[in-house]
Amino acid sequence: MRDFSTDHRWLSINTATVRKSQGQDLPLPQILDAVARHGIPAISPWRDQVAAAGLKAVSAQVKALGLKLSGYCRGGMFPAVDPAGLAAARDDNRRAVDEACELGAPCLVLVVGALPGALAGKAAHKDIARSRQQVSEGIAELLHYAKGQGMPLAIEPLHPMYAADRACINTLEQALDVCDTLDPGRSGALGVAVDVYHVWWDPKLQAQIERAGRERLLAFHVCDWLTPTTDLLNDRGMMGDGVIDIPRIRGWVEDQGFGGFSEVEIFSTGHWWQRGHDEVLQTCIARHRSVV
Amino acid sequence: MRDFSTDHRWLSINTATVRKSQGQDLPLPQILDAVARHGIPAISPWRDQVAAAGLKAVSAQVKALGLKLSGYCRGGMFPAVDPAGLAAARDDNRRAVDEACELGAPCLVLVVGALPGALAGKAAHKDIARSRQQVSEGIAELLHYAKGQGMPLAIEPLHPMYAADRACINTLEQALDVCDTLDPGRSGALGVAVDVYHVWWDPKLQAQIERAGRERLLAFHVCDWLTPTTDLLNDRGMMGDGVIDIPRIRGWVEDQGFGGFSEVEIFSTGHWWQRGHDEVLQTCIARHRSVV
Repeated sequence: MRDFSTDHRWLSINTATVRKSQGQDLPLPQILDAVARHGIPAISPWRDQVAAAGLKAVSAQVKALGLKLSGYCRGGMFPAVDPAGLAAARDDNRRAVDEACELGAPCLVLVVGALPGALAGKAAHKDIARSRQQVSEGIAELLHYAKGQGMPLAIEPLHPMYAADRACINTLEQALDVCDTLDPGRSGALGVAVDVYHVWWDPKLQAQIERAGRERLLAFHVCDWLTPTTDLLNDRGMMGDGVIDIPRIRGWVEDQGFGGFSEVEIFSTGHWWQRGHDEVLQTCIARHRSVV
Repeated sequence: MRDFSTDHRWLSINTATVRKSQGQDLPLPQILDAVARHGIPAISPWRDQVAAAGLKAVSAQVKALGLKLSGYCRGGMFPAVDPAGLAAARDDNRRAVDEACELGAPCLVLVVGALPGALAGKAAHKDIARSRQQVSEGIAELLHYAKGQGMPLAIEPLHPMYAADRACINTLEQALDVCDTLDPGRSGALGVAVDVYHVWWDPKLQAQIERAGRERLLAFHVCDWLTPTTDLLNDRGMMGDGVIDIPRIRGWVEDQGFGGFSEVEIFSTGHWWQRGHDEVLQTCIARHRSVV
């Protein structure tokens, strides 16, 4: 297991972590400058932030600053109620692959979607098995396109509390079942993003990380689970402030040969998004060295 | 699959569902009277409510009203940081078994506990595997006692969002692994409580219900998952107001021969606990007939 205690060469910042600074939106160009200023070598940007700043401009800035990417957030949201919706998701996901290529991302992270309409508060149906079938079909189709572009796809199993509205792939085992079906040869074109927030509770976690192996472990995300957690989406904790044994999980991942970045992804309306982004980045560096 | 549409003979009310009426605490004796007045045949009371009203008095009232029980809530909370804590949990669980016997419950429901201290906001450690080991040992010890009293134990796998503070058994598969280890003969002394709120998301749910079989399916709880869910504990929905395909899951359970009560367990600070309990019970009856 790598020693993170003396530097932060393996730290990446998911740009949602500093999406807001002191409660105000922080544009992506400022985020990139701040990350580089703190000597953080990598980022994982969100599509909406990239779109707001302009893909070409972001790509140029990333290169000028010498930043690497640990992933691109995100593709997915495959399920729909009709062929037009499925086609729209397909087209949008292809654009996400193209953007990931332009930015030099090592993978496109997939938050696969769930019951259509649920995220807006009104699910069109209750058939999660149907959504899961649409997800498998959507990934299969996108995989064909992404292979052509040389862009690996990383399925991110989301915590079961998001099964209704954000992702109906909810365990690492389930994600790997999809990988085995669609990429039995373990080509490296399809794998998983392991976010400790989503999977820490899983009694089969260690076994499934071993099953994933090096070829399927495409990204590793960290934050922490707070007790109590006051919001299902935006109350993630800074590493060390919660109950997740992050080094243990990182050890399992690295035992498989994973040698990529440790990406900090924290959504925190009440706490970290109220702080200044420099303080947040300094804290990420300190915690990366001490508790990850 | 039984037809629930014409009557409510298989309805049970978990007494937490009407713990409050119009925002005020509703004592258990009044709950029991109201349940009986609505022709609801069964309840599942909580220990704190029973303690407040007095065990003997509650037992007498239950018998006088001709109510049955669908379970007793709850034993468990096994993990602790030291031998004294483990012994205290053991003793308290034996008392819970005794109370369940006095009340004529068909099973004692177990919410097994998780990281010691987490429920109070400060976990004593982050070793969920250690808690899981303590849970297995605690159930093994309690099972010996409960068998002597003739009281079946029903492990309730809780949604993974409770893995830190309430229960580190989080899937039906995991609960059944414990059952298979401790009761390989499927004696009926150890099984599971299937609450749709906790398990609806699980891609392996149908297969694990089949694995459980009639001997292990000791209780069936219903409510609904709302989108959005605004609180991790107390924002459960009334059946039909959320995204859970309850009849499908009930069908799987009944395919195994389950013929017990369908128990409504709703914690709802913002909505149902603000309504009058008669309205809540009427709604439970209506939804039991129409969407369960």
